[in-house]
Amino acid sequence: MVAIAYEPKMGRIPIRHLSPQQPEDLWPAKAYAGEVVPFAATVFKEGHDILGVELLLTAPSGAESRHRMSPGAAGTDRWHTDALLDVPGEWRFRVRAFNDDWATWLHNAEIKIPAGIDVPLMLTIGAQLLERAVAQTPTSRALTDAAKAIVNTKRSPAARLAAVSGARVATAMAAEPLASLTTESAPRSIRVERTRAGVGGWYEFFPRSEGAVRHADGSWRSGTFRTAAKRIPAVAAMGFDVLYLPPVHPIGVAFRKGPNNTMTPGPGDPGSPWAIGSKEGGHDAIHPDLGTVADFTSFLATARRNKIEVAIDLALQCSPDHPWVTEHPEWFTTLPDGSIAYAENPPKKYQDIYPINFDNDPIGLREEILRIVEYWIGLGVRIFRVDNPHTKPLAFWEWLLNQVNSNHPDVVFLAEAFTRPAMLHSLAQVGFQQSYTYFTWRNTKEELEEFLSGLSKTTSDFLRPNLFVNTPDILTEYLQFGGPPAYKVRAAIAATASPTWGVYAGYELFENVARPGSEENIDNEKYQYKQRDFAAAEAHGRSLAPYITKLNEIRAAHPALRQLRNLDVHWSDDDSILVYSKFLDGRFTKNGRSDAIIVIANVDPHSVRETTVHLDPTRFGVDPGRLFEVTDLLTGQTFTWGLDNYVRLDAFTEPVHILRVEFSKGS
Amino acid sequence: MVAIAYEPKMGRIPIRHLSPQQPEDLWPAKAYAGEVVPFAATVFKEGHDILGVELLLTAPSGAESRHRMSPGAAGTDRWHTDALLDVPGEWRFRVRAFNDDWATWLHNAEIKIPAGIDVPLMLTIGAQLLERAVAQTPTSRALTDAAKAIVNTKRSPAARLAAVSGARVATAMAAEPLASLTTESAPRSIRVERTRAGVGGWYEFFPRSEGAVRHADGSWRSGTFRTAAKRIPAVAAMGFDVLYLPPVHPIGVAFRKGPNNTMTPGPGDPGSPWAIGSKEGGHDAIHPDLGTVADFTSFLATARRNKIEVAIDLALQCSPDHPWVTEHPEWFTTLPDGSIAYAENPPKKYQDIYPINFDNDPIGLREEILRIVEYWIGLGVRIFRVDNPHTKPLAFWEWLLNQVNSNHPDVVFLAEAFTRPAMLHSLAQVGFQQSYTYFTWRNTKEELEEFLSGLSKTTSDFLRPNLFVNTPDILTEYLQFGGPPAYKVRAAIAATASPTWGVYAGYELFENVARPGSEENIDNEKYQYKQRDFAAAEAHGRSLAPYITKLNEIRAAHPALRQLRNLDVHWSDDDSILVYSKFLDGRFTKNGRSDAIIVIANVDPHSVRETTVHLDPTRFGVDPGRLFEVTDLLTGQTFTWGLDNYVRLDAFTEPVHILRVEFSKGS
Repeated sequence: MVAIAYEPKMGRIPIRHLSPQQPEDLWPAKAYAGEVVPFAATVFKEGHDILGVELLLTAPSGAESRHRMSPGAAGTDRWHTDALLDVPGEWRFRVRAFNDDWATWLHNAEIKIPAGIDVPLMLTIGAQLLERAVAQTPTSRALTDAAKAIVNTKRSPAARLAAVSGARVATAMAAEPLASLTTESAPRSIRVERTRAGVGGWYEFFPRSEGAVRHADGSWRSGTFRTAAKRIPAVAAMGFDVLYLPPVHPIGVAFRKGPNNTMTPGPGDPGSPWAIGSKEGGHDAIHPDLGTVADFTSFLATARRNKIEVAIDLALQCSPDHPWVTEHPEWFTTLPDGSIAYAENPPKKYQDIYPINFDNDPIGLREEILRIVEYWIGLGVRIFRVDNPHTKPLAFWEWLLNQVNSNHPDVVFLAEAFTRPAMLHSLAQVGFQQSYTYFTWRNTKEELEEFLSGLSKTTSDFLRPNLFVNTPDILTEYLQFGGPPAYKVRAAIAATASPTWGVYAGYELFENVARPGSEENIDNEKYQYKQRDFAAAEAHGRSLAPYITKLNEIRAAHPALRQLRNLDVHWSDDDSILVYSKFLDGRFTKNGRSDAIIVIANVDPHSVRETTVHLDPTRFGVDPGRLFEVTDLLTGQTFTWGLDNYVRLDAFTEPVHILRVEFSKGS
Repeated sequence: MVAIAYEPKMGRIPIRHLSPQQPEDLWPAKAYAGEVVPFAATVFKEGHDILGVELLLTAPSGAESRHRMSPGAAGTDRWHTDALLDVPGEWRFRVRAFNDDWATWLHNAEIKIPAGIDVPLMLTIGAQLLERAVAQTPTSRALTDAAKAIVNTKRSPAARLAAVSGARVATAMAAEPLASLTTESAPRSIRVERTRAGVGGWYEFFPRSEGAVRHADGSWRSGTFRTAAKRIPAVAAMGFDVLYLPPVHPIGVAFRKGPNNTMTPGPGDPGSPWAIGSKEGGHDAIHPDLGTVADFTSFLATARRNKIEVAIDLALQCSPDHPWVTEHPEWFTTLPDGSIAYAENPPKKYQDIYPINFDNDPIGLREEILRIVEYWIGLGVRIFRVDNPHTKPLAFWEWLLNQVNSNHPDVVFLAEAFTRPAMLHSLAQVGFQQSYTYFTWRNTKEELEEFLSGLSKTTSDFLRPNLFVNTPDILTEYLQFGGPPAYKVRAAIAATASPTWGVYAGYELFENVARPGSEENIDNEKYQYKQRDFAAAEAHGRSLAPYITKLNEIRAAHPALRQLRNLDVHWSDDDSILVYSKFLDGRFTKNGRSDAIIVIANVDPHSVRETTVHLDPTRFGVDPGRLFEVTDLLTGQTFTWGLDNYVRLDAFTEPVHILRVEFSKGS
């Protein structure tokens, strides 16, 4: 026999399948500051000994905390605990497992001593363990008392056992377990980003529309950063945290699109902001109509004063007039006839856009794009909404985002990738802080149950959804035909189901007319100016702004709504009544009180529904045997609820209950 | 800005989630020689170009083969191919992806040229691609012809396109694709073991029973290796490949168990073979009643002549009389009163057994156990059935099995771990070649569908099930009360659903009386001798042996039944009619003909059932639009079948159809 030196990968106690973890484990799991993360591991051992399992968590400061883990469902050997990651940076964790010698002995002693089996032996072993415990924690009065009591042969074995099996000894042993065969997993990392990477209300407007003026002859004066800044306080007053601007760069003239995506623009038509670049400059320039760099930074300053952050668009494509076209033809695809290839998906062509070719000069191109991103960062931008990242190489994004975040860990990138799961998920995995999702197309109860559970449980180690209810590109049939109830339902679900949600201007005015044959607004701001009188609509009670404001107030008041992983679906007997809860335990809240919200939404915007809602109260920290009080945060109504509850939701008045569980009163 | 040098983990074309792969990827995926393995990867790219994906497979010899992969379900970006791994050893594989420039051009040209878009440009690009193809494969007549045809300006554009879009060019391009942006995954390993690691029929008998003689006074003369060898030809004639013997070592006297697990053995009672060790020796000794080492090796030789392999038991536990108890007390747990700890699960004690303590002297112990295993290997044993491996440290098995297999890659270990999934799966993952499973307790249609699908699809990268229908420890209620139909059904399912199955002697005699209150046979051979007259039972038509023989003949004739990963569940309208198929494509069979078996089992052994069976014929290589002929291999009946088929199964005559699909006639 030839000896080999095989080194087992399994430790004395196997510790496997640590979570959080990204699929394939190529990059660390992600979280955001303030996120409560469920940790888990599969831990098991031969035999019947009782195990102890702990999470050892190291903050970026190096401070280590210890969290005892609890066994999950029987037979799974899965152990769990939740922990709050309260600051950004690289956190590390490992799992420690050990034979819990005291718990094992106590379990056996409580069977054998009453049954008269091995009584003196069991008491001797118990005494030895208590001696060990006293040596380990000499200051514990509970342990020294117990060590004396168990050897007191004047008392009966039952009394000696009783003297060591109470809560005092248990507490002391839990604090410093009597451990043997202690095994630790390898350490793992979690990348914790700033809170805004995971939590925020977004609002999108076109600065050229804000303050645009239509002259009597039908011509327009563009809005500017200075006029648009006047609307910032109103956006902030609705409770939004981020104001996202479509591209602010010069717009090409060649093949400029006219109103409603026509190919025949008039001389005053502004074109699509996504057709970037003209003789006035490219991705590092500001459209002269909007103002100067100083106007832009002044706009940022106004936003800052209003406690709102500005996100700009990163759309890596060029109009035929972009300076790169002449300066860097190698960054495009030149065809055999000498022309540059348009974007196309045959037989469709997008003639106002040249796609970038990332393969001729990948290094030069990525350095230039990095320079552009750094330029805007230098002006004070910290959030980029990235247009169609799935049409560029994944490895390019992986490089760019890691490069930027290594120097600026507070920069947030939002991926607008409406594409298949492999790419959508991979973009989040390589570094995008947030992702648009298929939310706008998930409208039935069944679709939403699967979709929201997936976001909360399946992809939450790497993907943070930004649930925009509409965009300049997306006006779904649900909104087109659902009327104001549809607008309420979708906003309420987006604002409560995900810690990040978004609204594109006009939503509050119920703008629901689509360009025929399309799924986007008619007279779309992408191709023309748009004046809106938000104040007049609100004054006449024809605005959703108060409802949106209320939603953002509820979000601000309820930390459970600012968590991603805590959504649980409950049940109703009606196929349009969606029920879910969000819960945050009091040990993770600032005031020490648990926070629980139950959302009940009638997703059929044309109906009045009555049904029974069935709850699992253990999912929001309530004993299932008790009744509890709930308050509707939209209407102020209160109800006494239990496992099964009658609900009536009239889409035409209030299609959604957002219920706060009253812990102080009900349970 | 401080520059970092971030190196993306994604290649130009992302290639992710390669399969086969073990969960957590700690050890290579497993396969056995002759296994057809499904390979898969998630491959995707930005944009609309058509991708090509190939599996590059390297045999242990170093020979590399290339297998074009096909896209799976729409939207999954998953690519698939199957490959036969025909020899044992370390195989390696990687996945290569590329832009398929020709396919992309052809797709676009077939849209644009008929629509009159960019016609000259498209033909120019096509001509350039064909020039590149000719340069790459100058010997291809198809390509040189096409390169000429596409530039023939005397013909219409449609004709020029038609001249290059036929099968000849497609075949040439498929053989040597016009690839760009070619990206390869990192290589991965597969551990391929000998065929018997995955395929075989097992039979278990107690050698002391085979040829045991009961004297007139009730006393017994033990069977021996010499008498037991006489039964080997009958076992081989039933078609079994492996003969497994319970422990053959000396049996302890202290606390020996008597008949029916009593604590009061008579002087002639032989005791449990699992209470290993006496003054005659321990794990490296042979029970004197069975014979000598020479008798044992002669028994092995007889088996070899009958083309059957002998498996012995590795049960790491000791009777109180085992030599280790005095020579190595550190290998056991000594209690404070000086006694050695019995096996116990309070309040139960197993007083004939001392469990081994693996923590006092782990190195000394593992070296001794390695020595013992090597000793039996030296005598010619190559298969070990391991008793209760889940009661010993997982890391010990990982070390032992990898140590043994590095020197003897042909040694097979079967894990008898009836325990929770974490341990059961981990034992297979660290190296056990085969595993007992929960098969005996999966008896309803619903249970079996989930169980068999799981074995075939979910765990097959690491776990090979050995579906024993009974054991000395397991006589399920299903067998106790199901009568002969139950014995037929269970044997037919085990023999066809898994490439490895097993029978413990007595099954063919329908021995179905349990010790009251237990789930094992009364008068169990574990504690006493047992005489059986197999020949008389068969002569009187009261034996299942002919049926078992038939099952093994069917297995031998049908390569589809010797595969693990090819089981697909189909449907019936009856809640007790189980339907599954096994299919092996003709490119993997020796005679080049596809092999398909459909099994239809009435799992209610007390009933006659009539129902409709619904098939997905694509799962077994048949066009769903066609009728096909099937032959019942048990009865010889033939039927013409299609998507939906009437079935009547009478448990009291033939509860199971094993249908061969007749490819030559029907399709």
